[in-house]
Amino acid sequence: VNDEPTAALVIIGAEILSGKVTDQNTPFLIRALRARGIDTTEVRVISDHHESIVQTVKTMADRSTYVFTTGGIGPTHDDITMEAVANAFGRSLVRHDEILERLRARYGNAINDAHHKLAEVPQGADVILGRERVLPVVRLENVFIFPGVPSLVRICFDRIAATLDSGSFYSRALHLSVSETVVAQTLRDLQEANPDVAIGSYPRFDDAPYRVKITIDSRNDRRVESVFEALQRALDPQIIVPEPDL
Amino acid sequence: VNDEPTAALVIIGAEILSGKVTDQNTPFLIRALRARGIDTTEVRVISDHHESIVQTVKTMADRSTYVFTTGGIGPTHDDITMEAVANAFGRSLVRHDEILERLRARYGNAINDAHHKLAEVPQGADVILGRERVLPVVRLENVFIFPGVPSLVRICFDRIAATLDSGSFYSRALHLSVSETVVAQTLRDLQEANPDVAIGSYPRFDDAPYRVKITIDSRNDRRVESVFEALQRALDPQIIVPEPDL
Repeated sequence: VNDEPTAALVIIGAEILSGKVTDQNTPFLIRALRARGIDTTEVRVISDHHESIVQTVKTMADRSTYVFTTGGIGPTHDDITMEAVANAFGRSLVRHDEILERLRARYGNAINDAHHKLAEVPQGADVILGRERVLPVVRLENVFIFPGVPSLVRICFDRIAATLDSGSFYSRALHLSVSETVVAQTLRDLQEANPDVAIGSYPRFDDAPYRVKITIDSRNDRRVESVFEALQRALDPQIIVPEPDL
Repeated sequence: VNDEPTAALVIIGAEILSGKVTDQNTPFLIRALRARGIDTTEVRVISDHHESIVQTVKTMADRSTYVFTTGGIGPTHDDITMEAVANAFGRSLVRHDEILERLRARYGNAINDAHHKLAEVPQGADVILGRERVLPVVRLENVFIFPGVPSLVRICFDRIAATLDSGSFYSRALHLSVSETVVAQTLRDLQEANPDVAIGSYPRFDDAPYRVKITIDSRNDRRVESVFEALQRALDPQIIVPEPDL
């Protein structure tokens, strides 16, 4: 299980912490990674301070198979992610000739210092260019450096998705008509007897057609099925409701 | 500025990291805190492992005026936040008589071990009960322990909002018809000359009626106005577009 791929997200942006923008990249990346069997183990939303980015990227790069940063990429003074990620690995920024060439082709004589900043990448980074776009995806060691704009994050993820190691997840769920307290002891016993699967319990307090959803998750499909069957045997069949069509 | 209140959010939940649920509590809390002048400086989404919660709460409680945890509150085996927060401060859990009394009044003879777990709070915690509800808000030192269900988070926040130290934020924005690269040097110079305000630059790549939004933020309203006027003077008036009605 330990060599199954994991990911950590580092969401960089004062605009998210100040409430000006709602972070759409976290839910997108969690689901896109999950669909490839990659388990997101932690997300950190931090402000655009150099030292915070350096420390957070260092910590997360040690713990996870992959790290994805979003935000702080661009031509302005508050775009410091590229340099901070470089520094996290003891590197500095160098000019990437092909990026600069594409910027020249696009902007011609209007090119300025701000465009030059867009062509700077960490020394030793992989640069994954799209067919026509100027926007590069930059990977340094196990860290992918993504922009903050959600539509661009999707483009970047699609461009690199096939290069990621993938895994598999298996999951089953049961919906119950009773409150969590009624089944808490059963779930606790089942979890203790089966520590290799994750049993989750999610109550609802609205008008949903069930009051609690029980989930069983594992990397091993046979273990999920086996614990799912044990759970069904342990419960009063009358409290199990059909899967709601939500 | 340093004694202005700050907050950190610790979002606990395998259901968010697995993509089953989108975290609504982070945007709600960031905005509710911001409206009271409290600056959210970091958000961490972590899984429901005891040691992760203990370490994260310790770190965040040292750095921020307030910490808000969400999730992992309830009667089942995967609800471990209460104990982990207690342990982060070297405390253990104790039974809270008034919570138990309310549970007895509500469930009568149906009360079981799972309900008893709901009445356990960290030693020395403040328990803020609503008028009728069973759900308590528990505060230990500077950490508020909130549930994960968004509708309950709102109830909990409203109950304790008046007890928080508050501050003030001031913000101005300008929308421009040109791309970031055109104004990058102007913004950089202005930020260097005015390090006490935060100048942000947010590009758009969609069909919005502007291509970049510039923001100026500070705790000091006169400084915001002064830098805002300097920015207007530094820019070609023709590139400034009216505030879009979004």
